[in-house]
Amino acid sequence: MSLLVVGSVAFDAIETPFGKTDKIVGGAASYIALAASYFTKNIDLVSVIGDDFPQDFLNILKNAGVSMEGLQVKKGEKSFFWSGKYHNDLNSRDTLDTQLNVLANFDPIVPESAKNAEFLMLGNLVPAVQRSVIEQMNVRPKLIVMDTMNFWMDIAMEDLKKTIAMVDVLAINDAEARQLSGEYSLVKAAQIILNMGPSVLVIKKGEHGALLFNKEEVFYAPALPLEEVFDPTGAGDTFAGGFIGYLSKTRDISFENMKRAIIFGSAMASFTVERFGTERLLGLNAKVIEERVQEFIELVQFELV
Amino acid sequence: MSLLVVGSVAFDAIETPFGKTDKIVGGAASYIALAASYFTKNIDLVSVIGDDFPQDFLNILKNAGVSMEGLQVKKGEKSFFWSGKYHNDLNSRDTLDTQLNVLANFDPIVPESAKNAEFLMLGNLVPAVQRSVIEQMNVRPKLIVMDTMNFWMDIAMEDLKKTIAMVDVLAINDAEARQLSGEYSLVKAAQIILNMGPSVLVIKKGEHGALLFNKEEVFYAPALPLEEVFDPTGAGDTFAGGFIGYLSKTRDISFENMKRAIIFGSAMASFTVERFGTERLLGLNAKVIEERVQEFIELVQFELV
Repeated sequence: MSLLVVGSVAFDAIETPFGKTDKIVGGAASYIALAASYFTKNIDLVSVIGDDFPQDFLNILKNAGVSMEGLQVKKGEKSFFWSGKYHNDLNSRDTLDTQLNVLANFDPIVPESAKNAEFLMLGNLVPAVQRSVIEQMNVRPKLIVMDTMNFWMDIAMEDLKKTIAMVDVLAINDAEARQLSGEYSLVKAAQIILNMGPSVLVIKKGEHGALLFNKEEVFYAPALPLEEVFDPTGAGDTFAGGFIGYLSKTRDISFENMKRAIIFGSAMASFTVERFGTERLLGLNAKVIEERVQEFIELVQFELV
Repeated sequence: MSLLVVGSVAFDAIETPFGKTDKIVGGAASYIALAASYFTKNIDLVSVIGDDFPQDFLNILKNAGVSMEGLQVKKGEKSFFWSGKYHNDLNSRDTLDTQLNVLANFDPIVPESAKNAEFLMLGNLVPAVQRSVIEQMNVRPKLIVMDTMNFWMDIAMEDLKKTIAMVDVLAINDAEARQLSGEYSLVKAAQIILNMGPSVLVIKKGEHGALLFNKEEVFYAPALPLEEVFDPTGAGDTFAGGFIGYLSKTRDISFENMKRAIIFGSAMASFTVERFGTERLLGLNAKVIEERVQEFIELVQFELV
């Protein structure tokens, strides 16, 4: 398999200014795998769920070309559950409830078929769990991309840094880049973080787009100004899924190609926020994705006379 | 004259995390005229100062090609003074002191030579004062660009809307666009504001760049990620000055050319924030401006294979 995706497959209950859901399917790996599946059909999923998880959604993933061999189903246990409420500006949210359930003792097991994956996407998880996946690989992947969050910076910074040192691309948001580096300037923050190990840093800025840094260059991908952001949940994971999906498809990990990958990731994320949960991410096709990418091109295109 | 600039010429005392100034030269029209002077030498300034204002700075403006006929010097009175302190993130600030002085009764008088100006830039002022300038023109300018601020939305919304209805381009920041329209989504806010009169809206987002809207199109200009933002004072005015300066020089007010104008405006603003006050804006030249513009092009440039 060419792409291994590790992360949570879970339930969310979401409240936004536009509405409210009961338990719906969520989890970093759900968004990542779905988004990536529009670019490659060679995806392995490593995750854990309880026996309360809907078979329908697993079938959707299977039909999208995602192999489930690495998905552990814990009998008599419950899937991870998160509940949150977004503020009116949709840029901030309160966590209402977190039930770790099966995620509390998640011990990922990479199936043999996935141990030679060329691309590895580590969704947000305990840093030591992310590391254990890297250590199970037969060959070091061509590219390891890692997501994480401020929570691990608060409670497990040293452990987190060990994992960061092992990856090629770190994808975090602007507040997290500032926290991780201790620097307010994102340019300075990027250089500090790149000295921690990764050769590339992606800084996600939500409605303000994303920045791509290596030690010499910087690229700015805008976010599409949207009429309506309905539910931001999963936008960052979808972005990561589109990013690594595009790279897996093209098998080109140059900085130039990563620019394209970021545009595709941003395009995928712009779909996700239009509906609750994974709803909008289902039933896309190459044509609507290309059209969305074209909107990004037009958004930033200008010619100097 | 081809460009008429109206706005404050004043003193600022600024405190940022990086240092502190005594009274230095500031004011919207100072930044606008200086920035525009790199694009056109046909500039008229309409403003008011006390007799406490340094002749040195007036000479700088004169040497930059700015005609001072419309600058009123009030004997025995003091120039407008503003003092502020930026927070650590540089995105927010507290006003420590505002002394209106000569600005309290500013009655702008447009000199005959400027009454046929093709381009009119209204810097932030009392909306009725901005309107009185438009009313003094012999011929309606080819393009009227207007800046304003949340302060007038708080205390004089109806009066502000009268002025907005008379201009072609309104340039405000994202918070102001939301306040003026009552809409959080900038896409929806833009359409509401464009229905108030202007045919083009520029939304300035500081370190996140700027958006350019007309009723059919949208363009996103990034801001250059800077190693160090030293002092944000005047960035928005410098942006406006570069924008209208470029348009005055090229005399092309198409949406395509406004995209270029926004890039030049952003480039000019990226200089201003590197030093206190107008310091960095003095002594630039066409070559360093072109180089900075080139950085913007490289920042967003990508090719789809």
